[in-house]
Amino acid sequence: MYDVVIIGAGPAGWSAAIYTARAGLQTVLLGILKNSNAYKAHVIENYFGYEKQISGPFLMEEGKKQALKFGTQYVEREVVDVKQNDDGTFTATDTERDLYTAKTVVVCSGLGFKPSGIKNEQPLIGKGISFCVTCDGFFFKEKNVAVVGNANYAGEEALQLLTYTKQISILSHGKDFSFSPKIQEGLEKNGVNFLKTPKITEFIGAAKLEKLKFADGTEAVYDGVFVALGVASASDFANKLGLKRTGPQNAYIVADPRTGATNVKGVYAAGDCTGGNAQAAKSAGEGCNAAISVIKLLKGVAAYVDYS
Amino acid sequence: MYDVVIIGAGPAGWSAAIYTARAGLQTVLLGILKNSNAYKAHVIENYFGYEKQISGPFLMEEGKKQALKFGTQYVEREVVDVKQNDDGTFTATDTERDLYTAKTVVVCSGLGFKPSGIKNEQPLIGKGISFCVTCDGFFFKEKNVAVVGNANYAGEEALQLLTYTKQISILSHGKDFSFSPKIQEGLEKNGVNFLKTPKITEFIGAAKLEKLKFADGTEAVYDGVFVALGVASASDFANKLGLKRTGPQNAYIVADPRTGATNVKGVYAAGDCTGGNAQAAKSAGEGCNAAISVIKLLKGVAAYVDYS
Repeated sequence: MYDVVIIGAGPAGWSAAIYTARAGLQTVLLGILKNSNAYKAHVIENYFGYEKQISGPFLMEEGKKQALKFGTQYVEREVVDVKQNDDGTFTATDTERDLYTAKTVVVCSGLGFKPSGIKNEQPLIGKGISFCVTCDGFFFKEKNVAVVGNANYAGEEALQLLTYTKQISILSHGKDFSFSPKIQEGLEKNGVNFLKTPKITEFIGAAKLEKLKFADGTEAVYDGVFVALGVASASDFANKLGLKRTGPQNAYIVADPRTGATNVKGVYAAGDCTGGNAQAAKSAGEGCNAAISVIKLLKGVAAYVDYS
Repeated sequence: MYDVVIIGAGPAGWSAAIYTARAGLQTVLLGILKNSNAYKAHVIENYFGYEKQISGPFLMEEGKKQALKFGTQYVEREVVDVKQNDDGTFTATDTERDLYTAKTVVVCSGLGFKPSGIKNEQPLIGKGISFCVTCDGFFFKEKNVAVVGNANYAGEEALQLLTYTKQISILSHGKDFSFSPKIQEGLEKNGVNFLKTPKITEFIGAAKLEKLKFADGTEAVYDGVFVALGVASASDFANKLGLKRTGPQNAYIVADPRTGATNVKGVYAAGDCTGGNAQAAKSAGEGCNAAISVIKLLKGVAAYVDYS
């Protein structure tokens, strides 16, 4: 049992890990360092504290080593699922289907909003189109369901759907499939179809979803569709944890920037996934704030004491 | 005319200056580097981005040089007054009585709350005891008034009182006087008394202030007292600018942590003076946020574009 699982390997996540690990909390951080937007920056010259230009990779490697030095366990894998357990703890699942159970969660998953861009998606949400198996899988018992996506997040959503139905197809939406060995194995063992399809161009239906149209003009009929493009993003984690969302397309998690607190006790959020300025300084500051809230909660103290 | 005057030389102030100067705004920062709490830290190891321990002075010197590199004008002096002008601009006064007029202000003056600890202060506030000549000087026209304090801030408050009355004494409250040459000269020229007094132990009066009691048991009679201990702090700047305050003893400026916005257009606040965790990362993040708001306001843009 960890004290805290941190989702995301950007400035917010590492800043949070530095604080929680340094305070002696069992800290695990999951995420791909190179995927953070700060890592992708060739030059950073506005992050307070470095007179000379630094590169994104330099800053991120420094922050990572800093967090590891205090005992952070780093697992360089994506999180494909997270849920609250009956006893109030939280469990995250990575792309190798390894599980991490912790008393608290800090979501620092970055901007990561992926509009599907598929015509007619918006009006059919809740009418056959869904974004969260944890939330809506139950409504598709014994139904014929498609998962749209080509990577681990889509694979994990499909595996979770197996609780409800065996008729599952993953539609690649114009890309090649790319699953981790564990997820691939799970999909094959359970007879999930992977269909390399052209891009989906339209969802068809009025009162409810009736069928999908592909870029080559062909169509396919499903009772339901789960959209799971790319990696799991803030809105996906929010769905799975019951977090309030805000902003354009509800892409952001509602969190108090001073504490990181969300509407779910024990779940905090920091950085780009909560909206605001997408700047390393702002994210690092919010990561610090969320971590201090975790420390206060788990140590039962009202004030943060610097453990130097 | 500056675009922005930044009050305070801690992580929030320098982070703000880095952003505004880098965006091409005429930026002046006032404050004493060594007075920032971060500067006083022997060791900093939880500021995201440095694997190895650094010292407070190292971090602050780096941040300062970074801001200077982009064209920030640094004046290493305290601010003893700030006000909004009739045309909506703002003017700050430093300890040499030099003036800095700007379109916007970012207050990053740190914790800096100074409880006077004098008995009976609280119930007599507004009944003869005041903390702001700009706000309340008018009520003491032709009265016999004391200013409590021994340093430049008290000197400047006394000089401003000259608009209203000539009967002014500065009471040193147990310390030695320490004024800048310009303020000393102004006080002498205008016949302000400086009285090296023992500590004041009590304000006496019920419906209104009647007299002061000193540690040696002596008493003195004044119509009004302005408390101006140490340097001007967040609550002082808030008084002078009409900013909403919050927190214990109303010591903090109310500011949106995502934008730094206060209740006065053009005035932003960031870092410890706004409450929350007193951590360099949090302050640097808020400084960044306030600066981006200034950039948006002055450039009339809805979005911040990174000018790298």
